Amino acid sequence: MTTAEPDFQAWMGAIQARMEATLTRVLPSAGVVPEGLHAAMRYATLEGGKRVRPLLAFAAGEMTRAATERLAIVAAAVELIHAYSLVHDDLPCMDNDVLRRGKPTVHVAYDEATALLAGDALQALAFQLLAERPLADEPAVQLEMLHILAAACGSRGMAGGQAIDLASTGKTLASAELEYMHIHKTGALIRASVMIGAACGEPLGATERAGLDRYAKTIGLAFQVVDDVLDADASTATLGKTAGKDAQQGKSTYVSALGAGRAREFAEELRVDAKRALSKMGDRTRRLAELADFIVLRKF
Amino acid sequence: MTTAEPDFQAWMGAIQARMEATLTRVLPSAGVVPEGLHAAMRYATLEGGKRVRPLLAFAAGEMTRAATERLAIVAAAVELIHAYSLVHDDLPCMDNDVLRRGKPTVHVAYDEATALLAGDALQALAFQLLAERPLADEPAVQLEMLHILAAACGSRGMAGGQAIDLASTGKTLASAELEYMHIHKTGALIRASVMIGAACGEPLGATERAGLDRYAKTIGLAFQVVDDVLDADASTATLGKTAGKDAQQGKSTYVSALGAGRAREFAEELRVDAKRALSKMGDRTRRLAELADFIVLRKF
Repeated sequence: MTTAEPDFQAWMGAIQARMEATLTRVLPSAGVVPEGLHAAMRYATLEGGKRVRPLLAFAAGEMTRAATERLAIVAAAVELIHAYSLVHDDLPCMDNDVLRRGKPTVHVAYDEATALLAGDALQALAFQLLAERPLADEPAVQLEMLHILAAACGSRGMAGGQAIDLASTGKTLASAELEYMHIHKTGALIRASVMIGAACGEPLGATERAGLDRYAKTIGLAFQVVDDVLDADASTATLGKTAGKDAQQGKSTYVSALGAGRAREFAEELRVDAKRALSKMGDRTRRLAELADFIVLRKF
Repeated sequence: MTTAEPDFQAWMGAIQARMEATLTRVLPSAGVVPEGLHAAMRYATLEGGKRVRPLLAFAAGEMTRAATERLAIVAAAVELIHAYSLVHDDLPCMDNDVLRRGKPTVHVAYDEATALLAGDALQALAFQLLAERPLADEPAVQLEMLHILAAACGSRGMAGGQAIDLASTGKTLASAELEYMHIHKTGALIRASVMIGAACGEPLGATERAGLDRYAKTIGLAFQVVDDVLDADASTATLGKTAGKDAQQGKSTYVSALGAGRAREFAEELRVDAKRALSKMGDRTRRLAELADFIVLRKF
């Protein structure tokens, strides 16, 4: 991507297409035993979503001149984790949702047991991919990548954020508590996507790494604030998932905590902050800055 | 363990105690947010079970003169995976069981959503542990350990075996199909426990490695055959889990496929085979041989 830089839309489209191809390849074929489980894993992952986490991994990798082949695997791994989290979140004992990315959710299209196992197996596959071939110049760096992803998935990361979300349903959370929840539930994996993507390439200095980390944390929060605004504003048809369900389920969101107008302003402030975190790192952060715009200004 | 070799019971008791201490330490405290999730993770893992997989990891590590500190972490990781699999298997959409290790299952003691997330977080924690500190002489070997564990957990390992088990409930499986199922459902993690434990120490030659792998596969199958015999024979009080539920749920087992007498003979043949696989590798396989006896001759 260093010569004849494509515009953002073209760059994004190329990575989304590459992601589809990579995920299609790394997921076991639905013709392999156990067929039903493999079909469900593919259904949960392919042909869906904006691939925000893979885009962030690629953008961060561009900053460290990482090889595209490595980034494709790393990006697939974070997307598998994201897909697994959606499958489990949609289960009846969790959010009990029937629609995702415009299609019936996995437990509706298959059954609950298959959805449970598909999520479990997608998580394992993500770690398998990160351990399977060289993805960093040093194996020790690759171990660090695995550690970042595992910590982001665990009880002090994504799974923990989900637990806090469930426990707080029906209660009114203050803005600071909401932030704590979302830093875990959504932010941890977004941050991991950025840091792991960067780790595929040349080592970053401490200052650059700290700046990138600040960007990653800020954009993770912005993503969630915008999600809350969209859930309140948009229609089910536009979102491809059930709209308005936060209010319906009595969930605390940035819209319920701050009001829609202030939530939109907050997202805008975070967009500025995220780009400021990149400002001293030169041209190679272009895609990260563009992604900050994309994440905050998106309409779906 | 090289001087003044303790007898098997003492060796086993010491490792079981060490496991309890290690798991108590590596699991997040129930006083840390999210408290409920952490309490459920601890409930699912601590004070329970024979710790067969950790014992196998330690025994294999003894063969390669692995450091005890490394083996404790590796053994904790495989036990976390085992604990997560039990939590998810017991859920209403799977085996719907209410009793495990003499206590209410996690979704009964907490709730379904917490059990789901606790399982998810336990899986992540296992991978986190394996990536967190040096566990092999070379980081590349440690990546291989992670790969072995991830593959053992995934759709062509434990989760896949579970899917086959569910799909075959109510059908009559032939012995060969049963073996295929159990090699995945139970065997994959048992084999991984052995191979990962060995990888903590000195490198094995190709012949030794092949022999160890044959032992590991054989003992994994033996474990399941004995489990089926015990489920049919023993009482709920002895097992600490609901006895007789295989027959009740219409599951194919070695007892239903072969009859109880032939199943017992098959387990005995596997015990002999497993020990034969070790026979040319000398004294350092003593604990592995003792574990073959323990696994096949156990009464609970």
